[in-house]
Amino acid sequence: MDLADIGVTGLAVMGRNLARNLARHGYAVAVHNRSAGRTDELVKEFGGEGTFLPAHEMAAFVASLKRPRRAIIMVKAGAGTDAVIEELAELMEPGDMIVDGGNAHFADTRRREAALREKGIHFVGTGISGGEEGALNGPSIMPGGSKESWAALGPILQDIAATVDGVPCAVHVGPDGAGHFVKMVHNGIEYSDMQLIAESYDLLRQALGATPAELAQVFREWNAGELESYLIEITAEVLDQVDAATGKPFVDVVVDQAEQKGTGRWTVQSALDLGVPVTGIAEATFARALSGHPEQRAAARTLEGPDISGVGERQLVEDVRQALLASKIVAYAQGFDQIAAASKEYGWDVDLGAMATIWRGGCIIRARFLDRIRAAYDADPALSTLLAAPDFSAVVNAAQDAWRRVVKTAVEIGVPTPGFSSALAYYDGLRRERLPAALVQGLRDYFGAHTYHRVDREGSFHTDWSGDRRERPA
Amino acid sequence: MDLADIGVTGLAVMGRNLARNLARHGYAVAVHNRSAGRTDELVKEFGGEGTFLPAHEMAAFVASLKRPRRAIIMVKAGAGTDAVIEELAELMEPGDMIVDGGNAHFADTRRREAALREKGIHFVGTGISGGEEGALNGPSIMPGGSKESWAALGPILQDIAATVDGVPCAVHVGPDGAGHFVKMVHNGIEYSDMQLIAESYDLLRQALGATPAELAQVFREWNAGELESYLIEITAEVLDQVDAATGKPFVDVVVDQAEQKGTGRWTVQSALDLGVPVTGIAEATFARALSGHPEQRAAARTLEGPDISGVGERQLVEDVRQALLASKIVAYAQGFDQIAAASKEYGWDVDLGAMATIWRGGCIIRARFLDRIRAAYDADPALSTLLAAPDFSAVVNAAQDAWRRVVKTAVEIGVPTPGFSSALAYYDGLRRERLPAALVQGLRDYFGAHTYHRVDREGSFHTDWSGDRRERPA
Repeated sequence: MDLADIGVTGLAVMGRNLARNLARHGYAVAVHNRSAGRTDELVKEFGGEGTFLPAHEMAAFVASLKRPRRAIIMVKAGAGTDAVIEELAELMEPGDMIVDGGNAHFADTRRREAALREKGIHFVGTGISGGEEGALNGPSIMPGGSKESWAALGPILQDIAATVDGVPCAVHVGPDGAGHFVKMVHNGIEYSDMQLIAESYDLLRQALGATPAELAQVFREWNAGELESYLIEITAEVLDQVDAATGKPFVDVVVDQAEQKGTGRWTVQSALDLGVPVTGIAEATFARALSGHPEQRAAARTLEGPDISGVGERQLVEDVRQALLASKIVAYAQGFDQIAAASKEYGWDVDLGAMATIWRGGCIIRARFLDRIRAAYDADPALSTLLAAPDFSAVVNAAQDAWRRVVKTAVEIGVPTPGFSSALAYYDGLRRERLPAALVQGLRDYFGAHTYHRVDREGSFHTDWSGDRRERPA
Repeated sequence: MDLADIGVTGLAVMGRNLARNLARHGYAVAVHNRSAGRTDELVKEFGGEGTFLPAHEMAAFVASLKRPRRAIIMVKAGAGTDAVIEELAELMEPGDMIVDGGNAHFADTRRREAALREKGIHFVGTGISGGEEGALNGPSIMPGGSKESWAALGPILQDIAATVDGVPCAVHVGPDGAGHFVKMVHNGIEYSDMQLIAESYDLLRQALGATPAELAQVFREWNAGELESYLIEITAEVLDQVDAATGKPFVDVVVDQAEQKGTGRWTVQSALDLGVPVTGIAEATFARALSGHPEQRAAARTLEGPDISGVGERQLVEDVRQALLASKIVAYAQGFDQIAAASKEYGWDVDLGAMATIWRGGCIIRARFLDRIRAAYDADPALSTLLAAPDFSAVVNAAQDAWRRVVKTAVEIGVPTPGFSSALAYYDGLRRERLPAALVQGLRDYFGAHTYHRVDREGSFHTDWSGDRRERPA
């Protein structure tokens, strides 16, 4: 009996498409699903695309794999994942590999990897981005786990990944949870990208009275330049869409409450633990939360705003383009900072330039722009912040006047642009020689004796605020 | 032998001062510390203030308490707390009470409360705010735990708490972790208050070229009006302070890296879980994180900013006062939203007006302003957002022009005001009838088939973006 090169368990749309992608690349793929119907359907419908070895039981699935075994789990992240891992692990042997291709929290991945390592089984938490279409035709793949598992899995993953300029969008991110961590930050950046796009659209629509179709054309033009990216491209498509039932612009019939599945939230929570300010992702996540409270928005409808008439200027379009670009650079700088901080914290040794490389294709945030990030890290792998790379500092320096005009216009006409304005505040904070954080430290010492450092001497100090107001070493 | 009314274990400065506060109010206080030296010192130095029953061993400490026993733990929050709780619990009996007065995470408090409830012991996670001075002379006290424990502890806690207009700043917050949760949000709001103060100071100093001493006078004047609060008061004190060693303003010799102990971070992390946008607290927490990355700030020193000369106008002082007030209202609105959301999530039934009441005195954020919050919730306990309360909507409506001028000025001269601008963006977001979140939902449906709702029909829908672009029920 012929054995399979690799297996996929969990055949909902993502798992099914990944299995088809593998089969189309010439791999013999074992396929399994808890309910056998899906397995049979896959073989019936797509069996002609390659070699599938269907299994109705997990034991048969594992038995159908070549050794060392390579099994990819494609189930909804959560407690269910643990059950599937346990079932698989009991049937496996040392040296075998379990790949979790779901959106697991990196802390869960670290826990699972450590537990399976004790049994000699490689657990490979793997970020896969690109949605259904990417899974089928080439996603961006971010595997963590051991170097040994990468040696056995890497060639296959690079075969089925997207490629850009002949370079596959799959690379070994680092040990244990590194892959899922990087995928999490990818999603956080995706939140920020979408928020900035939404603010651009909203501000131009409010300020210029432009129609969604007119704005679709603006985004289409932007997509021909340095903002070229998948999300800008599909924004034009969505804004151009007309609702068949009403004849209205599609975007006007959609309920304006943005939902979320959790990776944006996780990104911000982790950044807080790591002490990395990811204000762009945080504002994007909270903007979704705000939109999801219609009862509060209804109650606040009486709050006053400025008169918004008569602000329209075509110059604003180019200004918004530059604000979007500059704010996007800030969001990416913050996201890459977070990956660097986690890499240091967990000993992952992540190659930041390589992350930019594998995000160029396949994934939701794919963009021309990522080539420039890769180039910046190639030129200086120890780059302190992307904003300080010559290419990017030139862009933000050139954009800052336009960026300021955009935020001022938004503030003046009362359109919320939390993404633009928090990115600008971050920019202005980062470049300051002295921040008012010194006052915060003074207050903390006053009310809580939390002490402070001096600019001119080593050590910690406390001022006896309620007594003689003299300073003493603490 | 006489028994103690209540005990305190952990006699670092907070515990010692709390014990003295209890003794000064006529309670016989058992005192215990892991290293006996502190216990003896306390009795030697402050024994004259009341009745202390020192114990060198935990068993003797517990044995010296009247039944049902009331023991307050005042140790640094963390794993150490679990050890002390376990030691105490083994010596206690059903009906006894263990009060944790440290800054524990509310999830730990929930876990501990559930575990001790099985043994019949009441575990009372209690927020205590006011620092050393408050612990001694009257803090704000936020106990969680059972109603029975409140019946036995409440009169004592109300005795030693701060009072405002004859009302003690101590009330039963709700079951299990409710007290520590509310204390956590209190601290988050404190972060936001301090950030807004720092931005006010910084903007006025940069824009007007004012000295710290001149700005101390501004804050002193503000403290005579509706901004009256402890933090505004001590800001004037800190800005007035002159460094003895250099003769420079104190605030200029302090290293401008604000530190944090974690409660701000916890507040934002919890708000993300609850889906409540606390942008003011998040920006404040991240502003501290940004200040703590000197290497990045050094690398970003080349980034360009605008010419800041010639912007000074005395009108700005009053504008900043109004921006500070309006942004503060936003931060409190967000913090109270978070408490309301947690109360619903965990079934705590927290009285929001009572929280405003007990924060009026003793704690770090004590302010005249809190009377108005209490009044708003008294008038409408089901208030959807503080911003919609007539008193506060009148204030923000009146302040919005000044607020917009302040953010525009900050943006124009390149001074970071993430607190002001994110609060204004929240305000402008909340009052919008339609948000661009509809576009975000459209994009999510495009790339991930995440579906959307329609404004005119029930149900979930998906458009076949890569196919015929028709809409189908999802």
